Amino acid sequence: MFKVNANYLKLPGSYLFSNIAKKVAAYQDANPDKEIIKLGIGDVTLPLAPKIIDSLHDAVDEMSRAETFRGYAPDLGYEFLRNAIADGDYKSRGCDIQPDEIFISDGAKCDSGNIQEIFSVDNRIAVCDPVYPVYVDTNVMAGRTGEYDAASGTWSKVIYMPCTAENNFVPEFPKENPDIIYLCIPNNPTGTTITKAQLQDWVDYANRIGAVIIYDAAYEAYISEEDVPHTIFECEGARTCAIELRSFSKNAGFTGTRLGFTVIPKELKAGDVSLHALWARRHGTKYNGAPYIIQKAGLACYTPEGKAQLQEQVAYYMKNAKTIKEGLSQAGFTVFGGVNAPYIWLKTPDKMTSWDFFDYLLETVNIVGTPGSGFGPSGEGYFRLTAFGSYENTLRAMERIRSL
Amino acid sequence: MFKVNANYLKLPGSYLFSNIAKKVAAYQDANPDKEIIKLGIGDVTLPLAPKIIDSLHDAVDEMSRAETFRGYAPDLGYEFLRNAIADGDYKSRGCDIQPDEIFISDGAKCDSGNIQEIFSVDNRIAVCDPVYPVYVDTNVMAGRTGEYDAASGTWSKVIYMPCTAENNFVPEFPKENPDIIYLCIPNNPTGTTITKAQLQDWVDYANRIGAVIIYDAAYEAYISEEDVPHTIFECEGARTCAIELRSFSKNAGFTGTRLGFTVIPKELKAGDVSLHALWARRHGTKYNGAPYIIQKAGLACYTPEGKAQLQEQVAYYMKNAKTIKEGLSQAGFTVFGGVNAPYIWLKTPDKMTSWDFFDYLLETVNIVGTPGSGFGPSGEGYFRLTAFGSYENTLRAMERIRSL
Repeated sequence: MFKVNANYLKLPGSYLFSNIAKKVAAYQDANPDKEIIKLGIGDVTLPLAPKIIDSLHDAVDEMSRAETFRGYAPDLGYEFLRNAIADGDYKSRGCDIQPDEIFISDGAKCDSGNIQEIFSVDNRIAVCDPVYPVYVDTNVMAGRTGEYDAASGTWSKVIYMPCTAENNFVPEFPKENPDIIYLCIPNNPTGTTITKAQLQDWVDYANRIGAVIIYDAAYEAYISEEDVPHTIFECEGARTCAIELRSFSKNAGFTGTRLGFTVIPKELKAGDVSLHALWARRHGTKYNGAPYIIQKAGLACYTPEGKAQLQEQVAYYMKNAKTIKEGLSQAGFTVFGGVNAPYIWLKTPDKMTSWDFFDYLLETVNIVGTPGSGFGPSGEGYFRLTAFGSYENTLRAMERIRSL
Repeated sequence: MFKVNANYLKLPGSYLFSNIAKKVAAYQDANPDKEIIKLGIGDVTLPLAPKIIDSLHDAVDEMSRAETFRGYAPDLGYEFLRNAIADGDYKSRGCDIQPDEIFISDGAKCDSGNIQEIFSVDNRIAVCDPVYPVYVDTNVMAGRTGEYDAASGTWSKVIYMPCTAENNFVPEFPKENPDIIYLCIPNNPTGTTITKAQLQDWVDYANRIGAVIIYDAAYEAYISEEDVPHTIFECEGARTCAIELRSFSKNAGFTGTRLGFTVIPKELKAGDVSLHALWARRHGTKYNGAPYIIQKAGLACYTPEGKAQLQEQVAYYMKNAKTIKEGLSQAGFTVFGGVNAPYIWLKTPDKMTSWDFFDYLLETVNIVGTPGSGFGPSGEGYFRLTAFGSYENTLRAMERIRSL
């Protein structure tokens, strides 16, 4: 008789955003006349930029002719895109990353979920708390996290690094040495970030203790301040300790178009085993490449025209972030983030729990956000709003909040 | 110090098709004047059908306007596509499969590689021999296969079901009871198939011993004979023992466009744990949906116009299959498959090994095929050719082979 992966059964409840979607749907069903403004899930709303649309149409036309039709993509992704990324995201910042160290994928969520697979099950992971749930949940599925304690909302074998207002949302080196450290900078969910010097400390620490940093830089395009690292490979020594995850979702609006990439330097090794080789093997065995037409759309993001159009989109969302940040502050909330990231992290008023505040916002002003506790125990008492709505909705949401 | 997944290190060599690609590239580099005809990897060559191209353009235009732009897709895939599949592939054949039992993905390779993850590591798998390498390799990566014996090319804990000319390529029930049974019908690599009655026996067997059948029906569109099952859900009792994997790669030319789906009936359970729920959890946690524009292209495949155009494409490839089958027979080869599948499986002449025959064909007539032994020990002495080339190249390949 077949048996299931018992680790899956340890997962409490269902995926955070599925839960929220169900709650919102139930509220809307019961209140069909209410107009809900969704500032919960980090999903973009602006249409794809004109240059990307043109590129998609061109690529579709290529697929219509035998001479230019493309079947299976190369394992690592098309060279044209890997070259553009190496130049545009790394060489331009003085970072030594070669095109063949870049693996094209269908997104950073998939990569951040799959990357743990090339590591031993008995490795210890460390995560910031609060944290993007995928890092922890996928390690639970693999059996790496021990037992769940419902009271504290923590796993016995996970090392949590609290990031709260008390430490200015900068994670501190944990007491126990982890093997794998997840860092998301600029941070989801808190919208905060760390300086390049602080990240250099983490790189030095990882090299010292022999840990790998899985560095999620999905929000890099939102950095507005000088001293914030755009990639971990700006730090000295990162080539021997870091894997970087990148996404086209937030800088180019690809949440429904799907494209991302992972960078694994060839020097990153456990003994003589190269993580690059293991990931290449996984990619070649369990994955079949991102669609050609989507990879062409990715290339458009690196053209001068594409870049300019995407900068406008980012600016649009960051105007929303500013609107939310100022609106909440004026309404008396304590607010973080929103300067180098499209997320605003606020303290719930009157010591409400995150979920109580979720219900309160949904029911009184019909605004959907994300409860901080959904991201980990140190997220309790916080709440996330995103800047990805339309400007009009963002303004209206702030009006509603001021009316509270 | 971090450690790697030691199971990966057990994998011998690299992925079959990567190996072939490297060999071919090396030969071409050394012989730049030679024109190589590739009948190796099962990659399509016809451009996407006009109806699909129109649909892609329309969907791209939708992504260019705020009113019709789409962000994250629903976890299971868009309802429009799941409805079309439920109607077109199941209801039309009298099979009871509901839209919410269908999970849209980026392809059957990914799904066939990932599906093992929801099962316990100590489950025993059974595979046909020869077999599509992904089934075995992904179980190796999970640690389910025991130790590799290089001499026999087998894994100690895998149950092999030889499929050779001796048993007419129909797998027999193994002596030991497996927990998970992989069946690919019509078969890759042999191009052969089984009857509906024979598949019913497998369904009854699986239900009797409490096994799950992972049924890969990627080549369903190529079935030309009456008594061959198009889906395992034509068999009685399949809803309590079968998962079906389907692909748009071979029937619609989506190898570089990427779309597939997996069907898990809600009755399929281990005790009270539903495999549907586990796969939904995996999908929601580690995957982020196929691109909207690709799902729209998938929908086009189910329109009357789309269906007619795809039938023409399949007919084109099957004319190639017939050409190869007849050409090889005339040249004195013993040939199988090619009637309900786009693959032709031939016996190597003079008891040559599969790889010797690979080198011989590449070097003497510049034709690339796939060595049977690459698919498992019982594939030794066989060789696979695919019908996915152009008709002109297929004809020329047969001329070259007749000249041998």
